[in-house]
Amino acid sequence: MTRVSIIMGSKSDLPVANKAIAILKRFSVPFDIHVASAHRTPQRVEELVKQSESDVFIAIAGLSAALPGVVASFTTKPVIGVPVSGALNLDALLSVVQMPPGIPVAAVGLDRGDNAAVLAVEILALTDDGLKACLADYRCEQAEKVVADSEKVIEDVQC
Amino acid sequence: MTRVSIIMGSKSDLPVANKAIAILKRFSVPFDIHVASAHRTPQRVEELVKQSESDVFIAIAGLSAALPGVVASFTTKPVIGVPVSGALNLDALLSVVQMPPGIPVAAVGLDRGDNAAVLAVEILALTDDGLKACLADYRCEQAEKVVADSEKVIEDVQC
Amino acid sequence: MTRVSIIMGSKSDLPVANKAIAILKRFSVPFDIHVASAHRTPQRVEELVKQSESDVFIAIAGLSAALPGVVASFTTKPVIGVPVSGALNLDALLSVVQMPPGIPVAAVGLDRGDNAAVLAVEILALTDDGLKACLADYRCEQAEKVVADSEKVIEDVQC
Amino acid sequence: MTRVSIIMGSKSDLPVANKAIAILKRFSVPFDIHVASAHRTPQRVEELVKQSESDVFIAIAGLSAALPGVVASFTTKPVIGVPVSGALNLDALLSVVQMPPGIPVAAVGLDRGDNAAVLAVEILALTDDGLKACLADYRCEQAEKVVADSEKVIEDVQC
Amino acid sequence: MTRVSIIMGSKSDLPVANKAIAILKRFSVPFDIHVASAHRTPQRVEELVKQSESDVFIAIAGLSAALPGVVASFTTKPVIGVPVSGALNLDALLSVVQMPPGIPVAAVGLDRGDNAAVLAVEILALTDDGLKACLADYRCEQAEKVVADSEKVIEDVQC
Amino acid sequence: MTRVSIIMGSKSDLPVANKAIAILKRFSVPFDIHVASAHRTPQRVEELVKQSESDVFIAIAGLSAALPGVVASFTTKPVIGVPVSGALNLDALLSVVQMPPGIPVAAVGLDRGDNAAVLAVEILALTDDGLKACLADYRCEQAEKVVADSEKVIEDVQC
Amino acid sequence: MTRVSIIMGSKSDLPVANKAIAILKRFSVPFDIHVASAHRTPQRVEELVKQSESDVFIAIAGLSAALPGVVASFTTKPVIGVPVSGALNLDALLSVVQMPPGIPVAAVGLDRGDNAAVLAVEILALTDDGLKACLADYRCEQAEKVVADSEKVIEDVQC
Amino acid sequence: MTRVSIIMGSKSDLPVANKAIAILKRFSVPFDIHVASAHRTPQRVEELVKQSESDVFIAIAGLSAALPGVVASFTTKPVIGVPVSGALNLDALLSVVQMPPGIPVAAVGLDRGDNAAVLAVEILALTDDGLKACLADYRCEQAEKVVADSEKVIEDVQC
Repeated sequence: MTRVSIIMGSKSDLPVANKAIAILKRFSVPFDIHVASAHRTPQRVEELVKQSESDVFIAIAGLSAALPGVVASFTTKPVIGVPVSGALNLDALLSVVQMPPGIPVAAVGLDRGDNAAVLAVEILALTDDGLKACLADYRCEQAEKVVADSEKVIEDVQC
Repeated sequence: MTRVSIIMGSKSDLPVANKAIAILKRFSVPFDIHVASAHRTPQRVEELVKQSESDVFIAIAGLSAALPGVVASFTTKPVIGVPVSGALNLDALLSVVQMPPGIPVAAVGLDRGDNAAVLAVEILALTDDGLKACLADYRCEQAEKVVADSEKVIEDVQC
Repeated sequence: MTRVSIIMGSKSDLPVANKAIAILKRFSVPFDIHVASAHRTPQRVEELVKQSESDVFIAIAGLSAALPGVVASFTTKPVIGVPVSGALNLDALLSVVQMPPGIPVAAVGLDRGDNAAVLAVEILALTDDGLKACLADYRCEQAEKVVADSEKVIEDVQC
Repeated sequence: MTRVSIIMGSKSDLPVANKAIAILKRFSVPFDIHVASAHRTPQRVEELVKQSESDVFIAIAGLSAALPGVVASFTTKPVIGVPVSGALNLDALLSVVQMPPGIPVAAVGLDRGDNAAVLAVEILALTDDGLKACLADYRCEQAEKVVADSEKVIEDVQC
Repeated sequence: MTRVSIIMGSKSDLPVANKAIAILKRFSVPFDIHVASAHRTPQRVEELVKQSESDVFIAIAGLSAALPGVVASFTTKPVIGVPVSGALNLDALLSVVQMPPGIPVAAVGLDRGDNAAVLAVEILALTDDGLKACLADYRCEQAEKVVADSEKVIEDVQC
Repeated sequence: MTRVSIIMGSKSDLPVANKAIAILKRFSVPFDIHVASAHRTPQRVEELVKQSESDVFIAIAGLSAALPGVVASFTTKPVIGVPVSGALNLDALLSVVQMPPGIPVAAVGLDRGDNAAVLAVEILALTDDGLKACLADYRCEQAEKVVADSEKVIEDVQC
Repeated sequence: MTRVSIIMGSKSDLPVANKAIAILKRFSVPFDIHVASAHRTPQRVEELVKQSESDVFIAIAGLSAALPGVVASFTTKPVIGVPVSGALNLDALLSVVQMPPGIPVAAVGLDRGDNAAVLAVEILALTDDGLKACLADYRCEQAEKVVADSEKVIEDVQC
Repeated sequence: MTRVSIIMGSKSDLPVANKAIAILKRFSVPFDIHVASAHRTPQRVEELVKQSESDVFIAIAGLSAALPGVVASFTTKPVIGVPVSGALNLDALLSVVQMPPGIPVAAVGLDRGDNAAVLAVEILALTDDGLKACLADYRCEQAEKVVADSEKVIEDVQC
């Protein structure tokens, strides 16, 4: 049984999806992934959302980036939206975040598939002490990496 | 039988829709109008689009403004999108215009319900000589108003 | 016991917080609310976050809007960030959404306290069938309001 | 006899025009193409527009991108405007879409020559059942490509 | 005989034109003024430009603001463009300033009809010593006003 | 003897200057204030800067906002720049902050005369223990106000 | 004797200046060129401007781009400002164009040294029939190049 | 004993920090440098700031760029913020500069580590005549380089 469903608007969004996948694998969270376009395959989006047993959706899209909002229109489960960078950047970012009242999308930063997955894990961890502990570890590792980076920088720079 | 279907994402878009209505009435083009939200009532949008006998759709929406694109996903008839102004303005404008390849929306300017309707009339006029003549008259009136405005300005300003 | 903790960066953010409060009351979700500034009271933010028993945080802030990210730095629970409008708008919006990898904030739209609360309810509803049913009702009401609005518009407009 | 006239503001816009040409050829829609600059050759633009027997114009331009609006000033046929990307991007996009009341341009996305052509075909298809069927096929192909892409992605990603 | 021709795209641009008129009257520069729209009355713009005996054109327009560029396409005399503010502001400003190579427009700031006129006077003053002296006086007055303002401020503020 | 010199580009910047004045008075820091325009009175700016005995300059300006940079060109003392809001906002803000290498301006936020003065006090406090203690008090008051605001909000909101 | 003085804010602006130089040479307009920074060498800018015998200044600068405005503060001759592209683009463009009332700069597009020079020639041609004829030739050549480009495109594209 | 503390939000900000280091070394100002993330290591930032004996902080960060503001929340010493460029640029720039009233950050331009260091030296030079003399020398060198660049350009360009 999957806990997270990733839907990309186009195959070209795969590099952003891969950042999410790496995180979900690290936390051993079962997921599925599909390409489905809000504009080219609207019924497919509806079916994927309605048939999914996952708790959280991650929707990834660029340009006018309607996908996260359309996913949200078919479910009351949390939908995380990832805007994908392009010539304008603000187009996808504003489309994802500026949802009308009543139908929220949880927007993360431009191309931030990783943060979408961490946010999904944070949501699942609310009722999963194992995941909660893993998140604490993940934070520790991040902090340790900062300290290690700092030491390397200090070595390299002669103050 | 209607020739143009207007769909607004929210009742608050009515002032923009009214600009379209005024034009369609002037050209005696039969139309219908509905409120339907891409996010709050996705099935309703699908039904309205698929049941409509109109030749052209005008979709009006603000914020993330997915409506015109979602309308376009259910039809191969021309869809004209009108972005509605708000705190950011660029959010709705970019959502409407930056559609992915294959599913176009014909975007007009911010709050330009009037231009959406004129564009719809221009499309219908391709096979309707009466409308074509009316469009020519409309252009003449616009030009005459510019000349009249110019004369008033020259009177007021002492060069 | 509270399920949601609302933290505003300034008392002037109260109108946005009130939109969140109205939703949380409608869904009978217990919450608490505090003013705490990431810049004026950093320790207070840390204490509020670490002492909170809530599952979800809603952080509301304008201008450089560091508060949601700072809240997220002290917890692995989901943090929802609400940018508050001002002279630039993009300042708060981009600060909230453009978090670095590893520490996500779930951004909602400008001044969208309501959507922050709905998103919080969606997260809580994952393990609360009562809330899940309430969300379904809420969606139905929204859809019904769209239909009712549409009927009123059709009455008013003589097509 | 041509059905669509493509006018580019500069030879450097050819890559965007080529996206339109590929679509028009696919749908066997006869077209012509010209370079004509609103600023360098205003009379030429006027002559091309007034002599054209096409039903729809596609005008492609970058920078201040006056061409689509100038084309629209000489005809009441539908004019589709394609903004071309550059250092600012918003310059061409806003020039094309923000037309004054009464003289609409149907704007498509940045560099979206393909969508301009699809929109032109959608307009022609209103009175051409063959084209209507082709558009339905085109949509099907697009949807099938999404499904095929999805299957390839699922194979590659070990969920 | 006029030295400066002011062309406004719409009667609604009159407040901006009035700033130019006040300057031209102060410097006793003969001018004429017309409303002429690049989109609604393209021939009228062409005729006005070609018939004008003025040395300098001031073209004032908002939204997609093609007027200054279109004026420039019909003359090799200097054309000063004034973008008019609106919902987006950047639309008119970028349209006026981002002209293609070979056909310059001299852009001044948003709504800066006054600066357009001062620039026109500066151009005329190159071969008119009287105007040159008046410009020097005008600069002096401006500087004196700054000093007077400063004294008033110092009086009011108790340092 | 003054410690801080405030220079405004225009009398209309006084409301922003007044925020700085209120802070400087609170900290009993002697200051002077002048109106001097980088464009209308360049020599005056040069003289004011070169004659000033102050340690820190606060330069306040809107639109193209050259004043802070021009002040910085005449001194190696710290120059704090305050962009003033207007139709575009980004014009003044970017002019103030985007200085070329070698000649820094310390930019504060749009209309943030108050923060310019606090920054000036922070600089002076580096060698003035009295000011340092006052700054600590000021921070405490700010923090206490946040706590007091929080209590008022909690009273008003029935959680 | 020079007719045009080009001032660049930095040696790195030379590619933009070279576009101006090519035009001035084509029109045989005598010019001089200097590097002078508004921020690093303010006195030098003042001296260059005051000693110049040229009729027109072209000032080229990036980032906060104060140079054109500072040049304008020292002369009542026409000053043409050329914003230079960089990471933000809007910083230089808005600094150059958004001058305060009374001190105009004639802004041309981003990196448009060519258009700055053509504008300078247009100004000089007002009292120089030889230059006026050359400008007419230049326009003709531009138009002929458009027609030639169009023919090449038509050959290449099989309509 | 250090006079300046540099804190980078991420090791990837090192190229920007190196520009600051080069300046500080040139002026023989003792400094230290650390990597510390406002979001990944909030306590570390607090400790570094509170333990530092430096007079001035330079905080360098990209994306939502909370670091400079968070540093400022823990000290009343001057904090200079350097926004780091990325896909959007405005995100970091606006986060750094748009601080709320009472807690200033001295923002410098995008990637301007050099200017951050020069500003720090200017602050330290207020009570250090040696540094003041060095700053004067540095300005002279900059001016001399401009003159030398100008001579090279004049040689290369045949006016």
